[in-house]
Amino acid sequence: MTETSLLAMLRRLPLHPGARGLADDAAVIGDLVVTKDMLVEGVHYRADDPPGDVAWKLVAVNLSDLAAKGAVPVGVLSGITLGDAAWDRAFVEGLGAALTRMDVPLLGGDTVAAPARQARVLSLTAIGRSAHAPDRAGAVAGDGVWLCGTIGDAGAGLRMLERDPAATGPLVAAYRRPTPLMADGQRLAATATAMMDVSDGLLIDAARIAEASGVAIDIDLDMVPLSPAGSAFWGDDVVGAATAGDDYALLLTAPGAVAGAVRIGSVRAGTGLRLTRHGAPLALPQRLGWLHG
Amino acid sequence: MTETSLLAMLRRLPLHPGARGLADDAAVIGDLVVTKDMLVEGVHYRADDPPGDVAWKLVAVNLSDLAAKGAVPVGVLSGITLGDAAWDRAFVEGLGAALTRMDVPLLGGDTVAAPARQARVLSLTAIGRSAHAPDRAGAVAGDGVWLCGTIGDAGAGLRMLERDPAATGPLVAAYRRPTPLMADGQRLAATATAMMDVSDGLLIDAARIAEASGVAIDIDLDMVPLSPAGSAFWGDDVVGAATAGDDYALLLTAPGAVAGAVRIGSVRAGTGLRLTRHGAPLALPQRLGWLHG
Repeated sequence: MTETSLLAMLRRLPLHPGARGLADDAAVIGDLVVTKDMLVEGVHYRADDPPGDVAWKLVAVNLSDLAAKGAVPVGVLSGITLGDAAWDRAFVEGLGAALTRMDVPLLGGDTVAAPARQARVLSLTAIGRSAHAPDRAGAVAGDGVWLCGTIGDAGAGLRMLERDPAATGPLVAAYRRPTPLMADGQRLAATATAMMDVSDGLLIDAARIAEASGVAIDIDLDMVPLSPAGSAFWGDDVVGAATAGDDYALLLTAPGAVAGAVRIGSVRAGTGLRLTRHGAPLALPQRLGWLHG
Repeated sequence: MTETSLLAMLRRLPLHPGARGLADDAAVIGDLVVTKDMLVEGVHYRADDPPGDVAWKLVAVNLSDLAAKGAVPVGVLSGITLGDAAWDRAFVEGLGAALTRMDVPLLGGDTVAAPARQARVLSLTAIGRSAHAPDRAGAVAGDGVWLCGTIGDAGAGLRMLERDPAATGPLVAAYRRPTPLMADGQRLAATATAMMDVSDGLLIDAARIAEASGVAIDIDLDMVPLSPAGSAFWGDDVVGAATAGDDYALLLTAPGAVAGAVRIGSVRAGTGLRLTRHGAPLALPQRLGWLHG
């Protein structure tokens, strides 16, 4: 079964109102924000990725979901399948480094034996608190579309690693050790009408906000912020950068100006996503981003 | 690496005070109780177990950890690796049945693709609220040791299934569809000096309370409550029942009488576990219960 069809089945189960119809990055219960993301070896990370980087990514992708709700992290629970002892040890050391660096403590979790030579399945539950947790459904015609962070660095790093597993540099680092934008998320949550973290690709995630909010979104690709290294990698292929994913930038809509973010488009009445490039309309690419299953 | 040595490494990471040193069934943050337990195919359940029963068990073992903290469930987040579509469908149907029956809604979670023919790894995070969440460390010399529920049914059911995968009946049901004692836990939490759910075996779990509390515990095996079916299965082998695990009964210590529970022993100054049978001391069995890793 695909993730999409399983999700459709899960949506028919008894849902907590804070589950937001399983259409958001995290569940919200009062001021509590809870999220749970998994990483599978060979699916979400490369088997030859350093274990410390895998641990970092596991923490970062979950905290990024909290950032999208403006939450201050309270703690995390880990779920670890055991395997090769040296890998396990390096993973836990990396987990400690990530928790220390991102200033979030371990609350608990579970560690289990698994059959030998099985791909690892790692999970994390992150808990935070937010006075105002925006969802994806609040974008209003007339809002601007804003981006905090840059797009395409991690996707470039992944492509570099696919060509050469020994590749290094800032783009590889962006792929292996993404930085969740915690302080930005906390700052932006109060003014955002909708917000999410860009994990599957800017275009697909913008389309998700449009769909959840029942609006249309126009994006001016000339305004999408790339880092200098990302810009050098992607060259003219901004669509490549905007569909690559793993960015963990924050995408939001807001009625007024947003400090510390770049305006990349507008919300208008209607449905769907519309792109412009060099001031002219650009057809949507066939693939807007990473589609699960 | 074993679960025990990985846990020792995790204890050296930055811990939340509510993690209780990773020595409890659940983390406690104010009135919030959070727990996360995983089930691995071939390790925690049999590959031929019906998927609906696996889903039930996943919910039940997590809610039982909440019961041990006297918590009222708020919701759960699931972590599911995908595989065979028919199994997936039956699992989600079973998850719905378990959530409905145990009256707890889905909050969210993650669903991920996994390599083909890999053992499934299922996880759940359960969140609840409790005004008073007892830990394992509060047992005081002079307290009685009490048990709410019965011991040995699930262990008997597992042995029956090992002999005949087509076995049925109340003992098999106790193994496949354990019932977490939510109402009992909520009722007992206020009077318990220490409480936990019996998941790995009565004797090993009693020894854990003794060790965490810095006391000795005496257990009178003649007082350990078995169901009629369990009693018929185990016959004279009460030690077998008391070391089998998967019971999800509640084990607690308390200074006074405890309604709805059976007194099975006493707390005294000292260390370790001491057994009596037919009024005479009984040497500890080599194996007190299920030891992870």
